[in-house]
Amino acid sequence: METLRIGMLGFGTVGRGVADLLLNKQELLAQRTGMKLRLVRIATRTPERDRGLRLGNTEVTGDLHRVVDADDLDVVVELIGGIIPARDLVGRAMETRKHVVTANKALIAEFGAELFAMANAHGVQLSFEAAVAGAVPVIKALRESMAGNRIDLIYGILNGTCNYILTEMRLKKLPFHQVLADAQAKGFAEADPSFDVDGIDAAHKLAILSAIAFRTHLDFSRISLEGIRHIADVDIQWAEQMDYRIKLLALARLQEGLLEFAVRPVMVPRQSMVAAVEGVHNAVFVRGDFAGTTMYHGRGAGERPTASAVVADLVDLARDLRSGGKGRLPPLGVPVHHLRTLPIQNAAQRHGTFYLRLAVADRPGVLAEVSAILARHGISLDAVHQEGRSHVEAVPLIMVTHETTEERIALAMGEIETLESVRETPRTIRIESGLA
Amino acid sequence: METLRIGMLGFGTVGRGVADLLLNKQELLAQRTGMKLRLVRIATRTPERDRGLRLGNTEVTGDLHRVVDADDLDVVVELIGGIIPARDLVGRAMETRKHVVTANKALIAEFGAELFAMANAHGVQLSFEAAVAGAVPVIKALRESMAGNRIDLIYGILNGTCNYILTEMRLKKLPFHQVLADAQAKGFAEADPSFDVDGIDAAHKLAILSAIAFRTHLDFSRISLEGIRHIADVDIQWAEQMDYRIKLLALARLQEGLLEFAVRPVMVPRQSMVAAVEGVHNAVFVRGDFAGTTMYHGRGAGERPTASAVVADLVDLARDLRSGGKGRLPPLGVPVHHLRTLPIQNAAQRHGTFYLRLAVADRPGVLAEVSAILARHGISLDAVHQEGRSHVEAVPLIMVTHETTEERIALAMGEIETLESVRETPRTIRIESGLA
Repeated sequence: METLRIGMLGFGTVGRGVADLLLNKQELLAQRTGMKLRLVRIATRTPERDRGLRLGNTEVTGDLHRVVDADDLDVVVELIGGIIPARDLVGRAMETRKHVVTANKALIAEFGAELFAMANAHGVQLSFEAAVAGAVPVIKALRESMAGNRIDLIYGILNGTCNYILTEMRLKKLPFHQVLADAQAKGFAEADPSFDVDGIDAAHKLAILSAIAFRTHLDFSRISLEGIRHIADVDIQWAEQMDYRIKLLALARLQEGLLEFAVRPVMVPRQSMVAAVEGVHNAVFVRGDFAGTTMYHGRGAGERPTASAVVADLVDLARDLRSGGKGRLPPLGVPVHHLRTLPIQNAAQRHGTFYLRLAVADRPGVLAEVSAILARHGISLDAVHQEGRSHVEAVPLIMVTHETTEERIALAMGEIETLESVRETPRTIRIESGLA
Repeated sequence: METLRIGMLGFGTVGRGVADLLLNKQELLAQRTGMKLRLVRIATRTPERDRGLRLGNTEVTGDLHRVVDADDLDVVVELIGGIIPARDLVGRAMETRKHVVTANKALIAEFGAELFAMANAHGVQLSFEAAVAGAVPVIKALRESMAGNRIDLIYGILNGTCNYILTEMRLKKLPFHQVLADAQAKGFAEADPSFDVDGIDAAHKLAILSAIAFRTHLDFSRISLEGIRHIADVDIQWAEQMDYRIKLLALARLQEGLLEFAVRPVMVPRQSMVAAVEGVHNAVFVRGDFAGTTMYHGRGAGERPTASAVVADLVDLARDLRSGGKGRLPPLGVPVHHLRTLPIQNAAQRHGTFYLRLAVADRPGVLAEVSAILARHGISLDAVHQEGRSHVEAVPLIMVTHETTEERIALAMGEIETLESVRETPRTIRIESGLA
């Protein structure tokens, strides 16, 4: 039986999962591929640490170059994460004619174009199913199963940490910083949480999905980014009361040739399927002209789910090699010269309804001032909730608008913020009523 | 550019969708495959009927053999459905060295083994993504994305007609026969609905999914089958009251080497994701030891969703042919000689909790008689609901058991049915509390 000789960079959580799977499922993988998937070598900065695995003949080295420069490997699995040194290592592995499987969303989202060109030049494959939504095979679904569809909308919950925090804030009625601290203690959030809570991680994944869905160049930098740090517990409670739920939503929508491209907290109907995605789960919804809306849901991260996706890529590669197929599938589903760049909607073109929360002085006339500014910008209101009189300095004023544009909202809010009676920066959350 | 020459058998609803897609998306499909996907010929019994499509150079013939015997085609798309004559036609197409793509679940579930052997003998591919769950790519997910997992549980809602009927019964509080008639009028159910409402269609799909998930021979005949005809509106209302929802569930579960293999109505927790699958949607849940539970949801049937899946198979085929890959993937994910036959759980081994509904005489002592029989069979009760006194001949007695076995339930119900005070055949519905 032919052998697929695998080298691995990184032996952390996911690396441990991949090694566990490869070492303990030889027979299953051989049945499924007709090849022996052999984990030849692992490079890690801590080769001496015991991971509780029986490594058998698998070599563990502290020298990353013993993997990327090796001539006794067919494929390198990159699980270091981040850009430096992953970018150079992946490049080096491809230069020396090794296929690459990676779980590194930042690397693909930011340097995918360069790396895909290298893969093409050197006749190797670069696979990245594990970069988005863990075990959930959404790259494959988009690139293969939806191949006959014109996709006009893709959205999802792509960051388990944010979804966990928002779920906990709702269930336990706790503020953001307290839930974040708790998530950090439990290992669900990093010590520096900004990649997650500021939406960058979700945007990396959205950049990848959107490029495949719309046949565009990777363009992470054009995604509108808004994280969840400013979501207050009062927003979450108001959302519940109005039969919505707040989710950090990654969304790419093509309308009349213009792309809406954003990661931001939005309110979704409480009865929708996207609202039902709870805790650390991920879900992706894809709307195609023939398929309608299909949805993919599961564990978005973690040792074993991510390992499942990495091994799925290795199995695909083994099947390609064994069947003699060459260059079966370009990384983004179509050859590079077919990739487009779509114009992005501007704020005047982005229509929607909005939840607005102001902290206002508790005295007569404030609502009149605020309403006058909204009216001047052509914004009409669907609902207004004003809290009863209190003795605190500022009381919340909650408003829900009718359909308007982001530009009008931004201009109106800018004016409203300058009112003497408005005590904090107004909060705006878009309402997405039409999602499945 | 190379051409994939496509012939099609059948030009009904799905056939129209496939033709529409192939004829109108030449450029997209060429970008995605590097080949021209050309619909050369369609054979249908009604070649003269106008389907409202611009057919261009595509020939429409009344002679099925002009497709299956042709030597100017690379692949035949079979959309006739049923066994006769589809089985012979598919066989003939493969004998004459044409690949086959089919949406025919009955054909694959009942004659897959024979057809896969023919495909293998003649060096052609036989693909059937469209046979299960319409546009939802669950065959691909199981065969490719979950390749590194040991799967121990797969379940889902695989028949949109039944799910529509159960949804409508609940929302409109109408009895089965009335909703069925309405579904027939709307075209959601066939004139002869037995394939759907007796669970056969769902069982065909389960047979296919389960064979791939567990690496077993196709074995449709061993599935326990129970349809939804006997579900009463009162059962649906009781389910709601107890925070459950009744769904026709197709389930294959591997426990200690024994397979549970059933299509039947069950009660699932109202908060579960499977309960949230409404109307004509399909959903499949797959639990693997690494991936955890992943879920796939979408439109399970219809012209365009099914066409989307058929074309996905054609795109896969084109990519295989163009890249020079041969025999990349066996139909069930592993070569035939690795397929197993798993022993099926018997009724004594099938544990669970159950909802029981009796129609009993409205007089003292009945509950004592019934309870005595249950106790004798070692069945203890979690809850009993007895309706208040009434003037009708029989009143409902609703019971929920603690964990027991199907065998005990069957024996006890057999005895209870013979009681003079029990006026109808008792109804038993299994409760699946542990599903996602």
